[in-house]
Amino acid sequence: MSYSSKLLEKAVEQFATLPGIGKKSALRMALYMLRQPKENVELFASSIVGMSNNIKHCSVCNMVSDSQVCSICADTSRNRSLVCVVESIRDVISIENTNMYNGLYHVLDGIISPIDGVGPSDLPIAELENRVSTQEIKEVILALSTSMEGETTSFFLYNRLRKYNIKITTIARGVAFGDDLEYTDELTLAKSIENRQPFKI
Amino acid sequence: MSYSSKLLEKAVEQFATLPGIGKKSALRMALYMLRQPKENVELFASSIVGMSNNIKHCSVCNMVSDSQVCSICADTSRNRSLVCVVESIRDVISIENTNMYNGLYHVLDGIISPIDGVGPSDLPIAELENRVSTQEIKEVILALSTSMEGETTSFFLYNRLRKYNIKITTIARGVAFGDDLEYTDELTLAKSIENRQPFKI
Repeated sequence: MSYSSKLLEKAVEQFATLPGIGKKSALRMALYMLRQPKENVELFASSIVGMSNNIKHCSVCNMVSDSQVCSICADTSRNRSLVCVVESIRDVISIENTNMYNGLYHVLDGIISPIDGVGPSDLPIAELENRVSTQEIKEVILALSTSMEGETTSFFLYNRLRKYNIKITTIARGVAFGDDLEYTDELTLAKSIENRQPFKI
Repeated sequence: MSYSSKLLEKAVEQFATLPGIGKKSALRMALYMLRQPKENVELFASSIVGMSNNIKHCSVCNMVSDSQVCSICADTSRNRSLVCVVESIRDVISIENTNMYNGLYHVLDGIISPIDGVGPSDLPIAELENRVSTQEIKEVILALSTSMEGETTSFFLYNRLRKYNIKITTIARGVAFGDDLEYTDELTLAKSIENRQPFKI
Protein backbone atom coordinates (compact mmCIF):
# COMPACT_ATOMS: atom_id res chain seq x y z
CA MET A 1 0.00 0.00 0.00
CA SER A 2 1.17 3.53 -0.62
CA TYR A 3 0.53 6.27 1.92
CA SER A 4 1.01 9.99 1.49
CA SER A 5 2.71 10.18 4.89
CA LYS A 6 5.66 8.29 6.40
CA LEU A 7 4.26 8.93 9.89
CA LEU A 8 0.98 7.27 8.94
CA GLU A 9 2.84 4.42 7.27
CA LYS A 10 4.90 3.75 10.41
CA ALA A 11 1.83 3.75 12.64
CA VAL A 12 0.04 1.35 10.27
CA GLU A 13 3.09 -0.93 10.27
CA GLN A 14 3.07 -0.99 14.06
CA PHE A 15 -0.65 -1.76 14.31
CA ALA A 16 -0.17 -4.53 11.75
CA THR A 17 2.26 -6.30 14.12
CA LEU A 18 -0.66 -7.01 16.49
CA PRO A 19 -2.03 -10.55 16.33
CA GLY A 20 -4.91 -10.99 13.89
CA ILE A 21 -4.50 -7.51 12.38
CA GLY A 22 -3.82 -7.11 8.67
CA LYS A 23 -2.84 -4.00 6.74
CA LYS A 24 -6.44 -2.88 6.17
CA SER A 25 -7.46 -3.13 9.83
CA ALA A 26 -4.18 -1.50 10.83
CA LEU A 27 -4.92 1.45 8.55
CA ARG A 28 -8.39 1.72 10.06
CA MET A 29 -6.85 1.81 13.55
CA ALA A 30 -4.22 4.39 12.60
CA LEU A 31 -6.83 6.67 11.03
CA TYR A 32 -9.03 6.20 14.09
CA MET A 33 -6.10 7.30 16.27
CA LEU A 34 -5.57 10.34 14.04
CA ARG A 35 -9.11 11.49 14.79
CA GLN A 36 -8.64 11.15 18.57
CA PRO A 37 -7.63 14.05 20.84
CA LYS A 38 -3.90 14.01 21.60
CA GLU A 39 -4.46 13.21 25.29
CA ASN A 40 -6.37 10.02 24.40
CA VAL A 41 -3.53 8.93 22.15
CA GLU A 42 -1.02 9.65 24.94
CA LEU A 43 -3.14 7.62 27.36
CA PHE A 44 -3.31 4.73 24.89
CA ALA A 45 0.46 4.70 24.45
CA SER A 46 1.31 5.19 28.12
CA SER A 47 -1.05 2.41 29.25
CA ILE A 48 0.72 -0.07 27.02
CA VAL A 49 4.25 1.07 27.80
CA GLY A 50 3.35 1.26 31.49
CA MET A 51 2.10 -2.30 31.46
CA SER A 52 5.16 -3.54 29.61
CA ASN A 53 7.57 -1.78 31.98
CA ASN A 54 5.91 -2.36 35.33
CA ILE A 55 4.03 -5.62 35.26
CA LYS A 56 5.46 -8.49 37.32
CA HIS A 57 4.94 -12.21 37.53
CA CYS A 58 3.57 -13.50 40.83
CA SER A 59 6.38 -15.23 42.72
CA VAL A 60 3.97 -17.98 43.80
CA CYS A 61 1.82 -18.85 40.79
CA ASN A 62 3.56 -17.02 37.89
CA MET A 63 0.39 -15.08 37.00
CA VAL A 64 0.80 -11.46 35.83
CA SER A 65 0.53 -9.16 38.79
CA ASP A 66 1.11 -5.57 39.91
CA SER A 67 2.97 -6.73 43.03
CA GLN A 68 5.27 -9.53 44.16
CA VAL A 69 2.31 -11.79 44.99
CA CYS A 70 -0.80 -11.63 42.79
CA SER A 71 -4.26 -10.73 44.07
CA ILE A 72 -5.44 -14.33 43.69
CA CYS A 73 -2.59 -15.82 45.75
CA ALA A 74 -2.96 -13.02 48.31
CA ASP A 75 -6.71 -13.56 48.71
CA THR A 76 -7.11 -15.39 52.05
CA SER A 77 -10.74 -16.27 51.31
CA ARG A 78 -9.69 -18.69 48.56
CA ASN A 79 -9.26 -22.43 49.00
CA ARG A 80 -5.48 -22.79 49.41
CA SER A 81 -5.53 -26.59 49.24
CA LEU A 82 -6.53 -26.56 45.57
CA VAL A 83 -4.18 -25.64 42.70
CA CYS A 84 -5.21 -25.53 39.06
CA VAL A 85 -2.32 -25.87 36.57
CA VAL A 86 -2.91 -23.93 33.33
CA GLU A 87 -0.88 -23.15 30.24
CA SER A 88 -1.45 -19.39 30.03
CA ILE A 89 -2.55 -16.18 31.70
CA ARG A 90 -5.60 -16.22 29.42
CA ASP A 91 -6.68 -19.57 30.87
CA VAL A 92 -6.67 -18.08 34.37
CA ILE A 93 -8.81 -15.16 33.21
CA SER A 94 -11.23 -17.57 31.49
CA ILE A 95 -11.59 -19.73 34.63
CA GLU A 96 -11.92 -16.64 36.85
CA ASN A 97 -14.74 -15.42 34.62
CA THR A 98 -16.78 -18.54 35.38
CA ASN A 99 -16.93 -17.33 39.03
CA MET A 100 -17.07 -21.02 39.99
CA TYR A 101 -13.49 -21.75 40.99
CA ASN A 102 -12.21 -20.68 44.35
CA GLY A 103 -8.78 -22.33 44.47
CA LEU A 104 -5.34 -21.10 43.42
CA TYR A 105 -3.48 -21.40 40.12
CA HIS A 106 -0.11 -22.31 38.72
CA VAL A 107 0.62 -20.72 35.35
CA LEU A 108 3.15 -22.65 33.26
CA ASP A 109 3.27 -19.85 30.65
CA GLY A 110 4.07 -22.48 28.07
CA ILE A 111 3.85 -26.18 27.42
CA ILE A 112 6.37 -28.98 26.87
CA SER A 113 6.98 -28.96 23.13
CA PRO A 114 10.21 -30.53 21.84
CA ILE A 115 9.46 -29.23 18.33
CA ASP A 116 9.57 -25.64 19.62
CA GLY A 117 12.54 -26.45 21.86
CA VAL A 118 10.54 -26.11 25.09
CA GLY A 119 11.53 -28.75 27.64
CA PRO A 120 10.34 -29.34 31.23
CA SER A 121 13.19 -27.23 32.60
CA ASP A 122 11.90 -24.17 30.69
CA LEU A 123 8.63 -24.25 32.64
CA PRO A 124 8.10 -23.49 36.37
CA ILE A 125 7.59 -27.16 37.21
CA ALA A 126 10.12 -27.24 40.06
CA GLU A 127 8.20 -24.31 41.57
CA LEU A 128 4.97 -26.30 41.35
CA GLU A 129 6.64 -29.31 43.02
CA ASN A 130 7.97 -26.99 45.68
CA ARG A 131 4.48 -25.65 46.35
CA VAL A 132 3.05 -29.16 46.57
CA SER A 133 5.78 -30.35 48.95
CA THR A 134 5.81 -27.32 51.27
CA GLN A 135 2.25 -25.97 51.27
CA GLU A 136 -1.01 -27.54 52.46
CA ILE A 137 -2.09 -28.55 48.95
CA LYS A 138 -4.56 -31.45 48.73
CA GLU A 139 -5.43 -31.47 45.06
CA VAL A 140 -3.81 -30.42 41.77
CA ILE A 141 -6.12 -29.99 38.78
CA LEU A 142 -4.38 -30.36 35.42
CA ALA A 143 -6.31 -28.01 33.10
CA LEU A 144 -4.07 -28.28 30.02
CA SER A 145 -5.21 -28.69 26.44
CA THR A 146 -5.77 -32.11 24.85
CA SER A 147 -3.17 -31.47 22.16
CA MET A 148 -0.14 -33.73 21.92
CA GLU A 149 1.91 -31.15 23.86
CA GLY A 150 -0.79 -30.70 26.49
CA GLU A 151 -1.11 -34.44 27.08
CA THR A 152 2.68 -34.79 27.28
CA THR A 153 2.88 -32.00 29.84
CA SER A 154 0.01 -33.46 31.89
CA PHE A 155 1.69 -36.87 31.90
CA PHE A 156 5.03 -35.34 32.91
CA LEU A 157 3.41 -33.39 35.75
CA TYR A 158 1.50 -36.47 36.90
CA ASN A 159 4.76 -38.43 37.10
CA ARG A 160 6.46 -35.69 39.08
CA LEU A 161 3.58 -35.15 41.52
CA ARG A 162 2.24 -38.63 42.17
CA LYS A 163 4.80 -39.37 44.90
CA TYR A 164 3.14 -36.70 47.06
CA ASN A 165 0.04 -37.50 49.05
CA ILE A 166 -2.32 -35.41 46.90
CA LYS A 167 -5.22 -35.96 44.53
CA ILE A 168 -4.32 -35.29 40.86
CA THR A 169 -7.33 -34.56 38.67
CA THR A 170 -8.04 -33.25 35.21
CA ILE A 171 -10.93 -31.12 33.93
CA ALA A 172 -13.97 -32.96 32.51
CA ARG A 173 -14.14 -33.40 28.75
CA GLY A 174 -17.50 -33.93 27.14
CA VAL A 175 -20.21 -32.49 24.96
CA ALA A 176 -20.44 -28.72 25.57
CA PHE A 177 -23.70 -27.18 26.76
CA GLY A 178 -25.86 -26.31 23.77
CA ASP A 179 -23.94 -28.57 21.39
CA ASP A 180 -25.75 -31.18 19.31
CA LEU A 181 -24.66 -34.80 19.71
CA GLU A 182 -24.65 -35.30 15.94
CA TYR A 183 -22.03 -32.61 15.40
CA THR A 184 -19.75 -33.67 18.28
CA ASP A 185 -16.55 -35.49 17.33
CA GLU A 186 -16.41 -39.22 18.10
CA LEU A 187 -13.64 -38.97 20.73
CA THR A 188 -15.48 -36.34 22.77
CA LEU A 189 -18.78 -38.20 22.48
CA ALA A 190 -17.19 -41.54 23.47
CA LYS A 191 -15.47 -39.90 26.47
CA SER A 192 -18.69 -38.19 27.54
CA ILE A 193 -20.44 -41.58 27.67
CA GLU A 194 -17.53 -43.31 29.39
CA ASN A 195 -17.35 -40.57 32.04
CA ARG A 196 -21.11 -40.30 32.53
CA GLN A 197 -22.37 -38.74 35.74
CA PRO A 198 -25.24 -39.55 38.09
CA PHE A 199 -28.35 -37.63 36.96
CA LYS A 200 -28.95 -34.63 39.22
CA ILE A 201 -31.98 -32.36 39.50
CA MET B 1 -13.80 -9.68 32.91
CA SER B 2 -11.58 -9.82 35.96
CA TYR B 3 -7.82 -9.47 35.65
CA SER B 4 -5.21 -10.08 38.31
CA SER B 5 -3.44 -6.84 37.34
CA LYS B 6 -4.68 -3.26 37.03
CA LEU B 7 -1.89 -2.54 34.54
CA LEU B 8 -3.10 -5.35 32.30
CA GLU B 9 -6.69 -4.23 32.72
CA LYS B 10 -5.86 -0.66 31.66
CA ALA B 11 -3.96 -1.85 28.57
CA VAL B 12 -6.86 -4.14 27.61
CA GLU B 13 -9.30 -1.24 28.03
CA GLN B 14 -7.17 0.91 25.75
CA PHE B 15 -6.89 -1.76 23.05
CA ALA B 16 -10.66 -2.25 23.28
CA THR B 17 -11.20 1.39 22.24
CA LEU B 18 -9.82 0.55 18.78
CA PRO B 19 -12.46 0.11 16.06
CA GLY B 20 -13.63 -3.49 15.63
CA ILE B 21 -11.79 -4.73 18.73
CA GLY B 22 -13.74 -6.38 21.55
CA LYS B 23 -12.55 -7.33 25.02
CA LYS B 24 -11.26 -10.76 23.95
CA SER B 25 -9.17 -9.45 21.06
CA ALA B 26 -7.97 -6.60 23.26
CA LEU B 27 -6.76 -9.10 25.86
CA ARG B 28 -4.99 -11.05 23.14
CA MET B 29 -3.23 -7.87 21.99
CA ALA B 30 -2.25 -6.84 25.52
CA LEU B 31 -0.80 -10.29 26.27
CA TYR B 32 1.03 -10.20 22.94
CA MET B 33 2.55 -6.85 23.92
CA LEU B 34 3.58 -8.33 27.29
CA ARG B 35 5.64 -10.95 25.48
CA GLN B 36 7.43 -8.37 23.31
CA PRO B 37 10.83 -6.86 24.19
CA LYS B 38 10.47 -3.44 25.84
CA GLU B 39 12.06 -1.63 22.89
CA ASN B 40 9.40 -2.99 20.50
CA VAL B 41 6.66 -1.79 22.83
CA GLU B 42 8.32 1.64 23.01
CA LEU B 43 8.52 1.74 19.22
CA PHE B 44 4.85 0.80 18.95
CA ALA B 45 3.81 3.57 21.34
CA SER B 46 6.11 6.23 19.93
CA SER B 47 5.02 5.57 16.32
CA ILE B 48 1.41 6.22 17.26
CA VAL B 49 2.08 9.24 19.46
CA GLY B 50 4.52 10.59 16.86
CA MET B 51 1.91 10.31 14.14
CA SER B 52 -0.76 11.94 16.28
CA ASN B 53 1.51 14.86 17.26
CA ASN B 54 3.27 15.56 13.98
CA ILE B 55 1.00 14.68 11.10
CA LYS B 56 -0.40 17.58 9.09
CA HIS B 57 -3.16 18.04 6.58
CA CYS B 58 -2.09 19.10 3.09
CA SER B 59 -2.98 22.77 2.62
CA VAL B 60 -4.08 22.05 -0.95
CA CYS B 61 -6.05 18.79 -0.89
CA ASN B 62 -6.54 18.14 2.87
CA MET B 63 -4.85 14.71 2.66
CA VAL B 64 -2.69 13.64 5.62
CA SER B 65 0.87 14.66 5.00
CA ASP B 66 4.25 15.04 6.71
CA SER B 67 4.69 18.51 5.26
CA GLN B 68 2.63 21.56 4.33
CA VAL B 69 1.89 20.16 0.87
CA CYS B 70 1.40 16.39 0.48
CA SER B 71 3.52 14.21 -1.78
CA ILE B 72 0.66 13.78 -4.25
CA CYS B 73 0.06 17.53 -4.67
CA ALA B 74 3.83 18.15 -4.83
CA ASP B 75 4.35 15.50 -7.53
CA THR B 76 4.85 17.47 -10.76
CA SER B 77 4.44 14.36 -12.93
CA ARG B 78 0.76 14.12 -12.03
CA ASN B 79 -2.09 15.49 -14.13
CA ARG B 80 -2.90 18.77 -12.41
CA SER B 81 -6.03 19.42 -14.47
CA LEU B 82 -7.88 16.51 -12.87
CA VAL B 83 -9.21 16.53 -9.27
CA CYS B 84 -10.96 13.58 -7.65
CA VAL B 85 -13.21 14.51 -4.69
CA VAL B 86 -13.37 11.78 -2.02
CA GLU B 87 -14.89 11.46 1.41
CA SER B 88 -11.87 10.13 3.32
CA ILE B 89 -8.13 9.57 3.49
CA ARG B 90 -8.83 5.85 3.07
CA ASP B 91 -10.50 6.49 -0.28
CA VAL B 92 -7.32 8.21 -1.52
CA ILE B 93 -5.20 5.25 -0.43
CA SER B 94 -7.62 2.84 -2.15
CA ILE B 95 -7.52 4.80 -5.42
CA GLU B 96 -3.72 5.20 -5.20
CA ASN B 97 -3.43 1.42 -4.81
CA THR B 98 -5.09 0.88 -8.19
CA ASN B 99 -2.05 2.61 -9.80
CA MET B 100 -4.44 3.81 -12.49
CA TYR B 101 -5.18 7.37 -11.43
CA ASN B 102 -2.71 10.12 -12.11
CA GLY B 103 -4.65 13.23 -11.12
CA LEU B 104 -4.94 15.10 -7.82
CA TYR B 105 -7.41 14.72 -4.97
CA HIS B 106 -9.60 16.79 -2.72
CA VAL B 107 -10.36 15.09 0.60
CA LEU B 108 -13.59 16.29 2.23
CA ASP B 109 -12.82 14.31 5.41
CA GLY B 110 -16.55 13.99 5.95
CA ILE B 111 -19.84 14.20 4.13
CA ILE B 112 -22.90 16.45 4.34
CA SER B 113 -25.09 14.78 6.94
CA PRO B 114 -27.72 16.94 8.67
CA ILE B 115 -28.48 14.05 11.09
CA ASP B 116 -24.90 14.16 12.37
CA GLY B 117 -24.90 17.96 12.30
CA VAL B 118 -22.42 18.15 9.41
CA GLY B 119 -23.31 20.94 6.99
CA PRO B 120 -21.53 22.18 3.82
CA SER B 121 -19.62 24.80 5.84
CA ASP B 122 -17.98 22.05 7.94
CA LEU B 123 -16.31 20.59 4.85
CA PRO B 124 -13.50 22.17 2.76
CA ILE B 125 -15.87 22.99 -0.10
CA ALA B 126 -14.86 26.65 -0.37
CA GLU B 127 -11.26 25.41 -0.74
CA LEU B 128 -12.34 23.14 -3.59
CA GLU B 129 -14.15 26.02 -5.29
CA ASN B 130 -11.08 28.15 -4.81
CA ARG B 131 -8.90 25.48 -6.47
CA VAL B 132 -11.33 25.21 -9.40
CA SER B 133 -11.49 28.98 -9.90
CA THR B 134 -7.77 29.72 -9.56
CA GLN B 135 -5.96 26.63 -10.86
CA GLU B 136 -5.88 25.05 -14.31
CA ILE B 137 -8.47 22.38 -13.43
CA LYS B 138 -10.42 20.91 -16.34
CA GLU B 139 -12.33 18.09 -14.66
CA VAL B 140 -13.65 17.27 -11.19
CA ILE B 141 -14.51 13.61 -10.51
CA LEU B 142 -17.06 13.14 -7.71
CA ALA B 143 -16.09 9.80 -6.13
CA LEU B 144 -18.48 9.85 -3.16
CA SER B 145 -20.58 6.98 -1.92
CA THR B 146 -24.11 6.32 -3.20
CA SER B 147 -25.62 6.70 0.26
CA MET B 148 -28.19 9.42 0.88
CA GLU B 149 -25.44 11.63 2.36
CA GLY B 150 -23.06 10.90 -0.53
CA GLU B 151 -25.67 11.77 -3.16
CA THR B 152 -26.60 14.95 -1.27
CA THR B 153 -22.97 16.02 -1.13
CA SER B 154 -22.41 15.21 -4.81
CA PHE B 155 -25.47 17.23 -5.76
CA PHE B 156 -24.36 20.15 -3.59
CA LEU B 157 -20.87 20.12 -5.13
CA TYR B 158 -22.31 19.89 -8.63
CA ASN B 159 -24.44 22.99 -7.95
CA ARG B 160 -21.47 24.90 -6.63
CA LEU B 161 -19.09 23.93 -9.43
CA ARG B 162 -21.26 23.97 -12.55
CA LYS B 163 -20.82 27.70 -13.09
CA TYR B 164 -17.13 27.09 -13.84
CA ASN B 165 -16.04 25.95 -17.26
CA ILE B 166 -15.07 22.41 -16.19
CA LYS B 167 -16.27 18.87 -16.74
CA ILE B 168 -17.97 17.34 -13.67
CA THR B 169 -18.01 13.54 -13.70
CA THR B 170 -18.75 10.71 -11.30
CA ILE B 171 -17.18 7.27 -11.04
CA ALA B 172 -18.84 4.41 -12.95
CA ARG B 173 -21.25 2.20 -11.05
CA GLY B 174 -21.90 -1.29 -12.33
CA VAL B 175 -21.42 -4.99 -11.79
CA ALA B 176 -18.01 -5.58 -10.15
CA PHE B 177 -15.43 -7.77 -11.90
CA GLY B 178 -15.97 -11.38 -10.85
CA ASP B 179 -19.51 -10.78 -9.59
CA ASP B 180 -22.39 -12.88 -10.85
CA LEU B 181 -25.29 -11.06 -12.48
CA GLU B 182 -27.81 -13.12 -10.54
CA TYR B 183 -26.48 -11.90 -7.19
CA THR B 184 -26.20 -8.23 -8.20
CA ASP B 185 -28.84 -5.88 -6.79
CA GLU B 186 -31.44 -4.56 -9.26
CA LEU B 187 -30.34 -0.92 -9.10
CA THR B 188 -26.70 -1.73 -9.90
CA LEU B 189 -27.69 -4.12 -12.68
CA ALA B 190 -30.16 -1.63 -14.20
CA LYS B 191 -27.51 1.13 -14.09
CA SER B 192 -24.90 -1.15 -15.61
CA ILE B 193 -27.19 -1.77 -18.60
CA GLU B 194 -28.20 1.88 -18.91
CA ASN B 195 -24.56 2.98 -18.86
CA ARG B 196 -23.30 0.23 -21.16
CA GLN B 197 -20.00 0.79 -22.91
CA PRO B 198 -18.75 0.04 -26.44
CA PHE B 199 -17.19 -3.44 -26.45
CA LYS B 200 -13.39 -3.24 -26.51
CA ILE B 201 -10.82 -5.94 -27.15
